[in-house]
Amino acid sequence: MTGGELIQEEARAWAYLSRVAEPPCADLADLVADVGPIEAADLVRRGDVEDGLLSLTAARREMDCADEDLDLLARCGGRLLTPGCAEWPHLAFGAFHGATGRPRAQTQPPMVLWAIGPERLVDVTERACAVVGTRAASAYGEHVASDFAAGLVERDVAVVSGGAYGIDGVAHRTTLACEGLTAAVLAGGIDVFYPKGHETMLRRIGEQGLLLTEYPPGVRPARHRFLARNRLVAACSGATVVVEAGLRSGAASTAAWAKALGRPVCAVPGPVTSAASAGCHVLLRDGANLVTRAADLVEYVGRMGEFESEPEHPTTPLDVLSDAERRAYEAFPARAARTVDQLAEAAGVPATQLLGPLATLELAGLVTRHQGRWQLARRTGADVR
Amino acid sequence: MTGGELIQEEARAWAYLSRVAEPPCADLADLVADVGPIEAADLVRRGDVEDGLLSLTAARREMDCADEDLDLLARCGGRLLTPGCAEWPHLAFGAFHGATGRPRAQTQPPMVLWAIGPERLVDVTERACAVVGTRAASAYGEHVASDFAAGLVERDVAVVSGGAYGIDGVAHRTTLACEGLTAAVLAGGIDVFYPKGHETMLRRIGEQGLLLTEYPPGVRPARHRFLARNRLVAACSGATVVVEAGLRSGAASTAAWAKALGRPVCAVPGPVTSAASAGCHVLLRDGANLVTRAADLVEYVGRMGEFESEPEHPTTPLDVLSDAERRAYEAFPARAARTVDQLAEAAGVPATQLLGPLATLELAGLVTRHQGRWQLARRTGADVR
Repeated sequence: MTGGELIQEEARAWAYLSRVAEPPCADLADLVADVGPIEAADLVRRGDVEDGLLSLTAARREMDCADEDLDLLARCGGRLLTPGCAEWPHLAFGAFHGATGRPRAQTQPPMVLWAIGPERLVDVTERACAVVGTRAASAYGEHVASDFAAGLVERDVAVVSGGAYGIDGVAHRTTLACEGLTAAVLAGGIDVFYPKGHETMLRRIGEQGLLLTEYPPGVRPARHRFLARNRLVAACSGATVVVEAGLRSGAASTAAWAKALGRPVCAVPGPVTSAASAGCHVLLRDGANLVTRAADLVEYVGRMGEFESEPEHPTTPLDVLSDAERRAYEAFPARAARTVDQLAEAAGVPATQLLGPLATLELAGLVTRHQGRWQLARRTGADVR
Repeated sequence: MTGGELIQEEARAWAYLSRVAEPPCADLADLVADVGPIEAADLVRRGDVEDGLLSLTAARREMDCADEDLDLLARCGGRLLTPGCAEWPHLAFGAFHGATGRPRAQTQPPMVLWAIGPERLVDVTERACAVVGTRAASAYGEHVASDFAAGLVERDVAVVSGGAYGIDGVAHRTTLACEGLTAAVLAGGIDVFYPKGHETMLRRIGEQGLLLTEYPPGVRPARHRFLARNRLVAACSGATVVVEAGLRSGAASTAAWAKALGRPVCAVPGPVTSAASAGCHVLLRDGANLVTRAADLVEYVGRMGEFESEPEHPTTPLDVLSDAERRAYEAFPARAARTVDQLAEAAGVPATQLLGPLATLELAGLVTRHQGRWQLARRTGADVR
């Protein structure tokens, strides 16, 4: 298969396989890789598989609602994504594989994804940043999430998140408002809008961006599904930034997935007095990259030639002085004029060593000379600390 | 000399030497180490020294106000500290020396110190933390500085700082208020209270703690003296914490000295929206240790057996569940009862694999069984993300 729409029989097989075992299921994925989806579905349905997989599929193998699922997906305007599709991101999911070339158990790639939205997955993953954080976001966290999302849009980076309350929602909404590209990865069926209060936002993402999930229709979110979902948020993104996280936030799990996948993990510092930043500070201690603005993220997200320069520090004329010149400058009183000998005494250096530095200071307009006496030029006071 | 008061002739020599070259002056310190202070002072006064030192002392060698300086010091109730004094901290200043045993030019130890206050320098340096930061502190920074200083006092750690406005002042004042030990290192003469608005505070430190300076009486602070002073703040402390710092704050220089001296540098994160934390974030990126509370500092300050344990994360009964138990738990609807087969279908595992986990959950009081049907026990909702 070279991409485009799946033929109906294959689509039915994928839909059946998506539901028959709780994803991610390495044994099932291996079988599909070996024999293809249609035969794999047939074998599983007949119970003609190894004991391990037989056990993992026992509870649901006789349940076949592939037609209903595909009908529902079609009514939503959605599509199934599989490794054969043109929009399947080979590179992004390739990183799920360990050094041996075999997927590591914990970083199993998705077998099939349910998707709704005008954007192609491969376009999202080509240049994306996961922006995640606590549902219990503070005003500070929301401000930063919004600022980062807007900055990522400006820099043509897609914003991937989990659709949750708090940081996730702010990141999605700001991206939509800025007409950027955003993808939400769900922890339940594509038709199950969770949290309920985000239904409108999630529908908008499905209309303007991309909604994604490993789970077939109707599946409701559960704790282990949030954790598995977080792995996809990390996998779809070149880097992950945790904007705010409590000590037990799910955002830490997304960060852990990103680390396991070899992707950069970034965290935003915050007040040490804020519980909503405590998880970020733990991540930073554990080696996460400290980021303070969207521009910092770009170098982690990747794509050549996009490294941004360091912030420019403010400079004053004093910054370019040598030590000798600075010491001469510091020997001046605020207003009064001084002879070279007086300056030498104040500076603690011989008068002969002051002449060069004084000439430089005069050229720089920092001091003036009048009838053999020197004094500071009129300017705003330098910070002497 | 074994400690105690300096004999008058030697005191006069030290006072003369303290003023004759701008400290720190390695050449002068070497001469004193070779021939002792009295002969060194005599040689310098006569100009009978090598060219380098002759040049460095040319401007002030004929100026001798040692008697006036010592009178002033005595009237203030102060004392001279030199390497022979019992309260001279051998260990702390020993770290100024590089691997060769020779002082590195940039980390030259002090030759002589002018001191006022009831506390002994060696008692300060035995267990001290430098708490430094920007003069333009925010309310957040002042809060943290005060919190850290109070926490250090509780843990019997002296608070060393530079007596400046902002973070330094809050650290000193809180330490005084908590009846802890604080030392201020000045960038000018012991009689020059700078900044003027801190005169009352500095006098209190001289009455209850320790005021220290390398500079003889009357010397006014200047930029290079603030930088040299910062090296003593770092040297007197087992660790340095920068609470808040702008991109050009002098606190960064104290941190750099601490690093050069091989002492741990700590920094407090803050809002990325606050310019007063920008310097801390740069330090953290450059490898400074992220600290969020005074207890974190204790392990860096040193003294054996004082390492404090990691913060305890809040736990819930769900935290101790195995993956299988957690998956079984997540298969339950919020309120309704379910048969084992229904739960198996929801969890995607065979019913036979659910029995063990269900029994564990029942023992843990998380689920209840009634007439062959299972349901969640009544409890506050678990966080499912």
